[in-house]
Amino acid sequence: MKIGAVDKITDYRHLNLYEIHYQDRLEKDRVWYIASRNDPPKCISERFDAPDAVVIVAHHQKYGGVVVIKEFRVPLGRYQYGFPAGLVDAGETIEQACTRELWEETGLTVARFIKTSPPIFSSSGMTDESIVMVYAECTGEISSAGNSASEIIYPFLVTADEARELCRHPDQLVDVKTWLVLEAFAGTGRVI
Amino acid sequence: MKIGAVDKITDYRHLNLYEIHYQDRLEKDRVWYIASRNDPPKCISERFDAPDAVVIVAHHQKYGGVVVIKEFRVPLGRYQYGFPAGLVDAGETIEQACTRELWEETGLTVARFIKTSPPIFSSSGMTDESIVMVYAECTGEISSAGNSASEIIYPFLVTADEARELCRHPDQLVDVKTWLVLEAFAGTGRVI
Repeated sequence: MKIGAVDKITDYRHLNLYEIHYQDRLEKDRVWYIASRNDPPKCISERFDAPDAVVIVAHHQKYGGVVVIKEFRVPLGRYQYGFPAGLVDAGETIEQACTRELWEETGLTVARFIKTSPPIFSSSGMTDESIVMVYAECTGEISSAGNSASEIIYPFLVTADEARELCRHPDQLVDVKTWLVLEAFAGTGRVI
Repeated sequence: MKIGAVDKITDYRHLNLYEIHYQDRLEKDRVWYIASRNDPPKCISERFDAPDAVVIVAHHQKYGGVVVIKEFRVPLGRYQYGFPAGLVDAGETIEQACTRELWEETGLTVARFIKTSPPIFSSSGMTDESIVMVYAECTGEISSAGNSASEIIYPFLVTADEARELCRHPDQLVDVKTWLVLEAFAGTGRVI
């Protein structure tokens, strides 16, 4: 397999479609379409060390439970259950992005970082997007005061039993990372 | 929040960019860009019951261990570690898609389906893509004979210790679902 020319098809601010020319294992010329927030995408830049976003698995030190948000997601036109998360701003460290996003989305404060994944890839058949999973303990009171105008976010804490119910309710839309972590939490009582 | 007009910006076969007009919570008109394999995307069709793809967590009945593939991913221009996975073809059930993909990518046969997640969402800030996680037991001998010309896939089995090593190696690219399941497998010896 060999990557050739990469053409930027659209020119928007946050997300674009790219046409990737490549040779398959029989050396036949082929084309693959991907969506990317990066210019150029990672198949050219090779910036595999730079995650697009952080996803925060936060355990509350005082109240127990794991922080989950119910958030309106425009691509779905509905509310979805997920973990606090967001894009890493230019110049920000992963820890800074986590601290900022957790506060903006939930009003909570990171007390201690426990573990951070490497950049891992959201859906590498269609995008070069990568995220880091950050496991942390948090403190403070839950609040939506930090939401921006384009956000409607309801943060709350779940126990292992509530996590099980959330993962199995047929009418609720759940993010894939959140489902996997909460399903394991429901089974083992552990998030790490 | 209210979804308005949705404009299809590109017109390719497998993936397109859409412009979604919506009103934020202050009733201000805004635009969000998403990538979708669906026409129309799910914010319009509301087909939340129809996953785009299946992802297979397969435990081998005879040899033990969990099936992992090392696969060249064009959007990354590199090999990535992941679970056997693929798009659900028109008219296929989830079980049929799993049986077909597992065979094509690894040469293995599904012996028993154990558990299936609801459709869960890959990265709902940028796409309406959903997948189902399917946990199964499998039999047979590993083979790449079923790979198509556009695929280079190396399937293998991992123990819990090998899963830990794979998740923590700094130079290996890993899919997010695979990382979360294998990290839990490394810690608990369980994949479900």
